[in-house]
Amino acid sequence: MKRFTEKIRPTAHEGLEKRIIEHLDNLTKPPGSLGRLEEFALRYCLCKGNAVAMLEKIELFTFAGDHGITEENITPFPSEVTSQMVVNMAAGGAAVSVLCRNAGIGYAVVDMGVKSELNDMPNLIKRKVAYGTNNFAHQPAMTEEKTMEALERGFHLAEQSHAHILGIGEMGIGNTSSASAIYSLVLGLDAKTTVGAGTGSNGDFLERKIAAVQKGIDLHRDATGDDPLKILSRVGGYEIAGMTGIILGAASNRIPVAIDGFIASAAALIAMRLEKNTRDYLFFSHASAEKFHRNFLAKEGIRPILSLDMWLGEGTGAVLALQIIKQAMVCYSQMATFTSAGVSNKE
Amino acid sequence: MKRFTEKIRPTAHEGLEKRIIEHLDNLTKPPGSLGRLEEFALRYCLCKGNAVAMLEKIELFTFAGDHGITEENITPFPSEVTSQMVVNMAAGGAAVSVLCRNAGIGYAVVDMGVKSELNDMPNLIKRKVAYGTNNFAHQPAMTEEKTMEALERGFHLAEQSHAHILGIGEMGIGNTSSASAIYSLVLGLDAKTTVGAGTGSNGDFLERKIAAVQKGIDLHRDATGDDPLKILSRVGGYEIAGMTGIILGAASNRIPVAIDGFIASAAALIAMRLEKNTRDYLFFSHASAEKFHRNFLAKEGIRPILSLDMWLGEGTGAVLALQIIKQAMVCYSQMATFTSAGVSNKE
Repeated sequence: MKRFTEKIRPTAHEGLEKRIIEHLDNLTKPPGSLGRLEEFALRYCLCKGNAVAMLEKIELFTFAGDHGITEENITPFPSEVTSQMVVNMAAGGAAVSVLCRNAGIGYAVVDMGVKSELNDMPNLIKRKVAYGTNNFAHQPAMTEEKTMEALERGFHLAEQSHAHILGIGEMGIGNTSSASAIYSLVLGLDAKTTVGAGTGSNGDFLERKIAAVQKGIDLHRDATGDDPLKILSRVGGYEIAGMTGIILGAASNRIPVAIDGFIASAAALIAMRLEKNTRDYLFFSHASAEKFHRNFLAKEGIRPILSLDMWLGEGTGAVLALQIIKQAMVCYSQMATFTSAGVSNKE
Repeated sequence: MKRFTEKIRPTAHEGLEKRIIEHLDNLTKPPGSLGRLEEFALRYCLCKGNAVAMLEKIELFTFAGDHGITEENITPFPSEVTSQMVVNMAAGGAAVSVLCRNAGIGYAVVDMGVKSELNDMPNLIKRKVAYGTNNFAHQPAMTEEKTMEALERGFHLAEQSHAHILGIGEMGIGNTSSASAIYSLVLGLDAKTTVGAGTGSNGDFLERKIAAVQKGIDLHRDATGDDPLKILSRVGGYEIAGMTGIILGAASNRIPVAIDGFIASAAALIAMRLEKNTRDYLFFSHASAEKFHRNFLAKEGIRPILSLDMWLGEGTGAVLALQIIKQAMVCYSQMATFTSAGVSNKE
């Protein structure tokens, strides 16, 4: 585990921060008037350890995997939708694909643990660790070995990337249940608090979902304690472990990551608990409409970039946040200064 | 006046709305999961009166003008900053210019009433009505004739535009005072409620600013009553009138408009009071950090798209909102449907 976290350094640097803020204040605008765009530019430059950092190349990955917990009849969508949507994403027809294309963001979907065998496609990266997880209401979702394998594969994607910043999202029927179980076990909350409708689990579906997640929490609580890796392994999923891995790999290589919504945030929570400095590299893209997400962000003192009632996942919220972070750095890098533009400052 | 408003029709259309929502629900995502992006796509298509509307060409205008109220020593920035910033915007060095360039948005700055004579520049549109307003603490800011002239010039810009959607912002030292006076007179509020720091008016500057705006309100209240045009003329500005004009011209031609922040919203308020159907065509981009803006939006029942603590103006918030509206329409137009992608729907 140590190799995944030992290179993650805090980004704080007093001298560098001063230089970045000096530059921001020298741009042709009143100091602070770009609001959070200035915060994003500052944080981005601190991640890079560079007061003249570039932000050109952006890549977004959707991590996909299937979930045994769907046996509990917790969602109206059949498991096959996972692989069908992976194909749709790779073919360019999903929301995340069209959003990335229009934003000039490099895109790929990563098969971490989809049930079925997938054919080769241009924007599909095959990193399958297993054909879906076990039903965590009855047994561990993944073995610890396979969890490490998924982490490793995610970590390696970040190491290989030439992107200046990454975005991550996910696809996996059943994975809001896994995410809720992770929040519950890490934060010590019951299923009623952390489980929401996910993708259309209302009425009886929602009741069964809460019951199944609570069963999983009760079953695994003693074995996991507050060990984030054990929690990930017992109730998580391959795509969640892949996201945790890429986050750690990105932070190890000073690459910031835009975290999508409810499930990606659960992966981020594991990564932050494994190494608290990880947080410096994360941009939480949006407050999802999924019930517990806003509470989670508030509990951790995180202010998301957007709040647009989205709950699709895939990385769709991350795309929009990345466009804003990019614009923050466009201002930082391309605006004229008071001197260069001959604009008077305050009297 | 009638010719500015008589063509503005409400966008509501039951049959069309049904077709748009049917298409949204047929895209490969759970219905409603793109949250407000679906609301934006619906509203945009209704504006166009077309269930297969295009959103390709986007233009943003920054309206500029000077303000006599600056004689009251209400801001630490000298009036010359207005024309200096207009030159900076046209030359491509201002925040709004670099943001538009990166977003592929056509950009121009419009001189509606800058004090000084400006040289020709490629992205500068010269529509000067006068060399700044009079000091509204002592006399009407503009004559009614010149107000109509400014409205006409803004209106004409929209009529000439080939853009599918427009964005508007402004530049004018002193213009938060005008905007506050407009809010006060239209909504019946005192200056203490509507005046904020604007661009760096703190401490003594803020006290003088509140006093000057209140003086203007008291001076003009009886003459204006609740007539939006009289209010605009007595306490507004040429750039504000230009924005009101382009909003009316855009709505008359079914072109939606992204409204920037505090001052652009004051122009929008006048336009909405002149013709209430105008509102259907407006997207309020963001909640500015300027004190009264969030209250204004709440009073009118408007939920802004973004909330990023920005208070620069120029149209900077509108650029970011336009990118999101564009992405909403990219999803609407380019996503695969359940049938075309072979994805299973709910069981």
